[in-house]
Amino acid sequence: MSELKNDLLLKALRGEHLSRPPVWMMRQAGRYLPDYIKLRKKYDFFTRVETPELACEITLQPVNQVGVDAAIIFSDILVIPQALGLEVLMEEGKGPSLPKVVATADDIDNLNLDGVAERLDYVMQALSLTKRELNGRVPLIGFAGAPWTLLCYMVEGKGSKTFDKAKQFCFTQPELAHKLLQKITDATISYLKAQARAGADLVQVFDSWSGMLSPADFKMFAQPYLIQIADAVSQDVPVILFPKGSWYALGDLSNSSASGLGLDWSVTPELARQLTGNKITLQGNFDPSKLLAPIPQIKREVKAMIDGFGTDKYIANLGHGILPNVPVDHAKAFVDAVKEYGN
Amino acid sequence: MSELKNDLLLKALRGEHLSRPPVWMMRQAGRYLPDYIKLRKKYDFFTRVETPELACEITLQPVNQVGVDAAIIFSDILVIPQALGLEVLMEEGKGPSLPKVVATADDIDNLNLDGVAERLDYVMQALSLTKRELNGRVPLIGFAGAPWTLLCYMVEGKGSKTFDKAKQFCFTQPELAHKLLQKITDATISYLKAQARAGADLVQVFDSWSGMLSPADFKMFAQPYLIQIADAVSQDVPVILFPKGSWYALGDLSNSSASGLGLDWSVTPELARQLTGNKITLQGNFDPSKLLAPIPQIKREVKAMIDGFGTDKYIANLGHGILPNVPVDHAKAFVDAVKEYGN
Repeated sequence: MSELKNDLLLKALRGEHLSRPPVWMMRQAGRYLPDYIKLRKKYDFFTRVETPELACEITLQPVNQVGVDAAIIFSDILVIPQALGLEVLMEEGKGPSLPKVVATADDIDNLNLDGVAERLDYVMQALSLTKRELNGRVPLIGFAGAPWTLLCYMVEGKGSKTFDKAKQFCFTQPELAHKLLQKITDATISYLKAQARAGADLVQVFDSWSGMLSPADFKMFAQPYLIQIADAVSQDVPVILFPKGSWYALGDLSNSSASGLGLDWSVTPELARQLTGNKITLQGNFDPSKLLAPIPQIKREVKAMIDGFGTDKYIANLGHGILPNVPVDHAKAFVDAVKEYGN
Repeated sequence: MSELKNDLLLKALRGEHLSRPPVWMMRQAGRYLPDYIKLRKKYDFFTRVETPELACEITLQPVNQVGVDAAIIFSDILVIPQALGLEVLMEEGKGPSLPKVVATADDIDNLNLDGVAERLDYVMQALSLTKRELNGRVPLIGFAGAPWTLLCYMVEGKGSKTFDKAKQFCFTQPELAHKLLQKITDATISYLKAQARAGADLVQVFDSWSGMLSPADFKMFAQPYLIQIADAVSQDVPVILFPKGSWYALGDLSNSSASGLGLDWSVTPELARQLTGNKITLQGNFDPSKLLAPIPQIKREVKAMIDGFGTDKYIANLGHGILPNVPVDHAKAFVDAVKEYGN
C-alpha cells in the first residue's frame, strides 16, 4: 500500500498541529457533479453502488474535480438493511422505500446477521479498487448509517418528517427496539471492520435522524449503539460520529472512543468547542444551502468558520450532504477557501 | 365580555405563582379528533378556515373533549400570503402549495399590504364568535406564522426538507429578502392587533422553519422580525414566540417583549431555564410522537417534564403540533397528567 501523500485528515483526527484544516464534503461523490449525472442516466442507483468500477469512478470524481482532501466511498447507508435481508427500493429523486418493514419479534429474528459483511463484498471491492486508484493521494473514508437511523427506515419503511412509526415502535416495544438496534450494531461493526481491512483509512457513522430524538431518548436509543461502534471500530481505524441535530449529545460523545464528531450548522464553533472541551476533533458545519450564495460570500463565511474552530482538531466540511443544485464552481470555492486559509 | 373563569395561561405568562401549569397542545384543533375528521369530509380546508361557525366549532372541540386550558383559533399560517394576494392550494394530506412564488422585486411590490387585516375579517369573526361561545371558560389564543417561515413558503412555493430555494433567495438577494420580510412583518402586526381587538387573549407566532437557519442567519433573517412583532403586539396582548429548532436563540429572545417562548423537545428543561435565565415563561416541549407511547408512560414523562420546568413561568405543551394518528385518550392523558400534577 502506497504511503499517503496528503494525510491532513488523519493528522487532524490525531490532533496534530496544522496550518490549515483538511476539507471534504458529505455526499461529495454524486448528485451535483455533471459526470455523475451522466452515469446516473446509464445505470440505476444500486448498479452504481454494487459495481466496484462505477463506485470507484464516482468516488474519485470530487477528488479529481473539486480537490477535496479525502475520498469517501460512493455507497448508501441502506446496504446494511439490504444485507440483513430486507428489500430496499430507490426511486430516482424520491428517496428510499422498504416494501416490507420490521414490525415483530419474528421480523427481527429473520434478519440474517451471519455473513453480513461477506454479502457486502462489493463495497470492499470498491474500497480496494479505489484505494489502488487513489495511489495515496488522499485518505479514503468508509461509512455506515447509525443504528437509530437505520431503525427509522427499517420500521417506517420510508423517509418521514417525524418518523413517528419508528418512534412508536421504540416507545411501545422497547425490548424489541433494543434487540433490533443491537442486531444492526453487530452488523455495522462487522461491516466497518471489513471496510478497514479493504482499505478505508477512517470511517464515519451517519446518524442522520438522531436530532428527532429528545436528549433522554437519544441516550436510550442512539447513544449506546454509537458508543459500541466507536469502541469496536476505533481499534482498527479512526471513527467520526455524526449525530445530526443532536448538539445536546456532543459533551457525552466527546468522551467516547471516536476521534471526531460531525456538526450541523445549528451549533456555533464556540459552543461546539465549549461542549466538547477541546477533547475531540470537530467536523463541519457549513450550511449546505450557503453554497448557493455568491462565491465571495462563500469564501468570506468559510474563513469566518475556520477562524471560529481554529486550524487544529478541525475538519472543514458541510453541516449535511451537498445539495444536488450546487454549481460545481461553488463547491470548488468552498474547498479552495479552506485551502487558502492563512495565505 | 365575561371574565375568564380559567386564566391559568395568562397567569403563567405574567409569572404568577401556580400549583400546576396550564396546558394546551399545538394544533389541538383538528387532525386527530374524530369530530374534526367528520367535518373534514364535508368541507374543504379553506371552507373550514373561512367559515366562522366551522372554525369556531373546530376550535371548541378540544376544549370540550380533551379539557385543555386554552382554545387556539382554527386557522392557518398561510392566510397572510393569501391576504397579500398569493394563491395558496391545500391538498388534503399533501401540504400547501403556492402556484406563483415570489421571485422578483415586482413580485414583492405587487403584494397588497393595504387592508390586509380587513381581508382576513373572517378570522376576526371566528375569534369573536368563539370568544362568545367560550363564555370565559378558557383564554382564546390567536396566531400567525413568523416572517421567515412565511417567506419559506412564499419563495419555495411548497414544503421542503431544506428550503434551499428560500435560502438562496435570502443569500443572493438579501435586500429583496429584507423587503419581503418587512412587508410580511407589517401585515402580521396589523393582523395580530386585529385578532386582539376581535377577542384573542394572547397570540403565538410560529416560526416553524427557523431551525433551518444557522445562528448567524437566524439573527439576520428571523430574529429582527420576531422582535418587531413582539414589540408591537405585546402592547395589546401577551405574545408567545415559537422559534422551532432555534434553541440557540433562546437567550436573545428572552430579552424581547415576548411573554413566553415555545420550545421543541431537543432542549432539556434545565438547559432552557439556564439559557433564558428564568426571565421569561417557557412553553413546551413534549415530543409529539411520545403521545403514541402507552398512557402510563405518557403520564410518567409529563410529570418528569413539569418537575424539570417547575410550575411557575411554565406552560405545558407539546414541542410541535399534535400528530394526526394520536388516539384521543392519549391526548387526554397528556392533559390529565398536567392537571393531576402535585395531587
